[in-house]
Amino acid sequence: MAVVVPFESQPTPSIDRLVGLCRADMERVNAMILSRTGSEVTMIPEVANHLISSGGKRLRPMLTLAMAQLAGYAGDGHIKLAAAVEFMHTATLLHDDVVDESEMRRGRKAARMLWGNEASVLVGDFLLGQAFRMMVEVGSLRSLEILSSAAAVIAEGEVMQLAAAKNTATTEDEYVAVIRAKTAELFAAACEVGPVIASLSKAEQTACRSFGMNLGITFQLIDDALDYGGKAAKLGKNVGDDFREGKVTLPVVLAFRRGSEEERKFWRGAIENSEIRDGDIEHALALMTKHRALDDTIARARHYGAIAKDALALFPDSAVKEALVETVDFCIARSH
Amino acid sequence: MAVVVPFESQPTPSIDRLVGLCRADMERVNAMILSRTGSEVTMIPEVANHLISSGGKRLRPMLTLAMAQLAGYAGDGHIKLAAAVEFMHTATLLHDDVVDESEMRRGRKAARMLWGNEASVLVGDFLLGQAFRMMVEVGSLRSLEILSSAAAVIAEGEVMQLAAAKNTATTEDEYVAVIRAKTAELFAAACEVGPVIASLSKAEQTACRSFGMNLGITFQLIDDALDYGGKAAKLGKNVGDDFREGKVTLPVVLAFRRGSEEERKFWRGAIENSEIRDGDIEHALALMTKHRALDDTIARARHYGAIAKDALALFPDSAVKEALVETVDFCIARSH
Repeated sequence: MAVVVPFESQPTPSIDRLVGLCRADMERVNAMILSRTGSEVTMIPEVANHLISSGGKRLRPMLTLAMAQLAGYAGDGHIKLAAAVEFMHTATLLHDDVVDESEMRRGRKAARMLWGNEASVLVGDFLLGQAFRMMVEVGSLRSLEILSSAAAVIAEGEVMQLAAAKNTATTEDEYVAVIRAKTAELFAAACEVGPVIASLSKAEQTACRSFGMNLGITFQLIDDALDYGGKAAKLGKNVGDDFREGKVTLPVVLAFRRGSEEERKFWRGAIENSEIRDGDIEHALALMTKHRALDDTIARARHYGAIAKDALALFPDSAVKEALVETVDFCIARSH
Repeated sequence: MAVVVPFESQPTPSIDRLVGLCRADMERVNAMILSRTGSEVTMIPEVANHLISSGGKRLRPMLTLAMAQLAGYAGDGHIKLAAAVEFMHTATLLHDDVVDESEMRRGRKAARMLWGNEASVLVGDFLLGQAFRMMVEVGSLRSLEILSSAAAVIAEGEVMQLAAAKNTATTEDEYVAVIRAKTAELFAAACEVGPVIASLSKAEQTACRSFGMNLGITFQLIDDALDYGGKAAKLGKNVGDDFREGKVTLPVVLAFRRGSEEERKFWRGAIENSEIRDGDIEHALALMTKHRALDDTIARARHYGAIAKDALALFPDSAVKEALVETVDFCIARSH
């Protein structure tokens, strides 16, 4: 089942322009990533590279590079900061797979299925340590502050999610608070460190942070919608994975609240007691369609996307600014 | 079965003098720890404080405080660095329990038995993030470098141990390399940051680091011996826990190498294939006694302890220096 979104602009928004503008820097980031996963303990590069080389878009480090460009930064620090951001993200994925007991990640077997939970936890810790080493090498205390705070906030968001797990009574506010912490905070930090090392004004730093934060929320909401349709298969996930795992994402929050008492009973049974039977996913999708839960999740995503775009308005027009704005549209366009 | 070690000096070495000298600072560290485990996500302080308040000796942060005192440091930075060191240690314990599937920790149920593996992984990540935040607040880039490197090295050591698990052919050198990384590195870093923030000379920084590194190795070797006897019960572990978990520690390395082919078959069966039957622990202890494996593990510990003491020789005599030296003897004396 595809989620269909009416679109204003004619050409399909793409991330290609951003990729093109960051290509040279990204090659340096990739080399840095490769060199910093090296260890005499062969299991470390094996586990790390299994995930790192599995074809993620590297959106987060690309944001650091693009923001450094937007800020007119002339130094080298953005390369290590971008690599650190990707390591933090990879560490989170390794730990998430253990926490969620996931079997697949990006269309491949999750690292924990190949090397075990132990290796996933420990290699995640190693990457986090290496991320901090790289940040320290850059020598910007403010960047260190931003990224170390992000590390704590992300973990806090994950625990928040764990504590709220399988709770169908979750409000939209509570849900957005969780994804703000667990997903959007790293987008925000990735975007903020660029203007910080370029010594832009506080207002400009805050603008970039706001862009990242709202793009991150947009990104996660679209991901939540995609889990119930669209091109989910291409992302290496199956339609309804979140449903099967009892995850209360925004589509469920909306369908549950808008549903009849009978329907809420269905959601509680499926989510709270993990009673998934044949036809349940189809029924869940039908209820979401009935209550416009997916369409409205995407509408909410558009709202945060609009805030992200406005956040960059105070910067003069440039190719990289346009590419960043298009990235917001690209994230939303993933849903159809 | 107690491990009996002949002792030269009459009074039993104690850690009390060190505790006394650091008391005022340690109260500030404890207050800092309490305030930095705070979170609106109630599961975080619950999990963190379950472990933090479980009566560990807080040896590692105490070393940071003592070294700052030895260095004549007059500022406040040592408080946050000591708290950061304890958080790093606590994060490691939370993750270790998941990796080792431990049920007990310090005589209490392990956090994972009460809140699950998920919470243990994520609260560990949160504490690591908070540790870095505190370090960043202190603002010493060199301290950040030391502690972030330590974080990566510790994780590397744990993976090394994982990769070498259940390998009875492990050499003593390989084993010491593992404990150097997974245990002693944090002792070394905890000791090094004191003279660093006090701006002592490089030679003095290296001396303090060397003290910590060798004390850490001593500490771990004694711990390994204790697992097969001594006051292990008081530490909240059962005699033979390492054996049951198939851990190849130095007592096993020595007993295996010194044993007959018949005996090696026993070790391989027990360690490599986890075939533990009634009477196996008693048999393992008898073989260790026959080959002096525990006594010699303690002799090795004494060797590293002596290096630790000599490392401090270039500092003028003082109460805190004497207390640090006595701490080495205290660690060794734990074994009887």
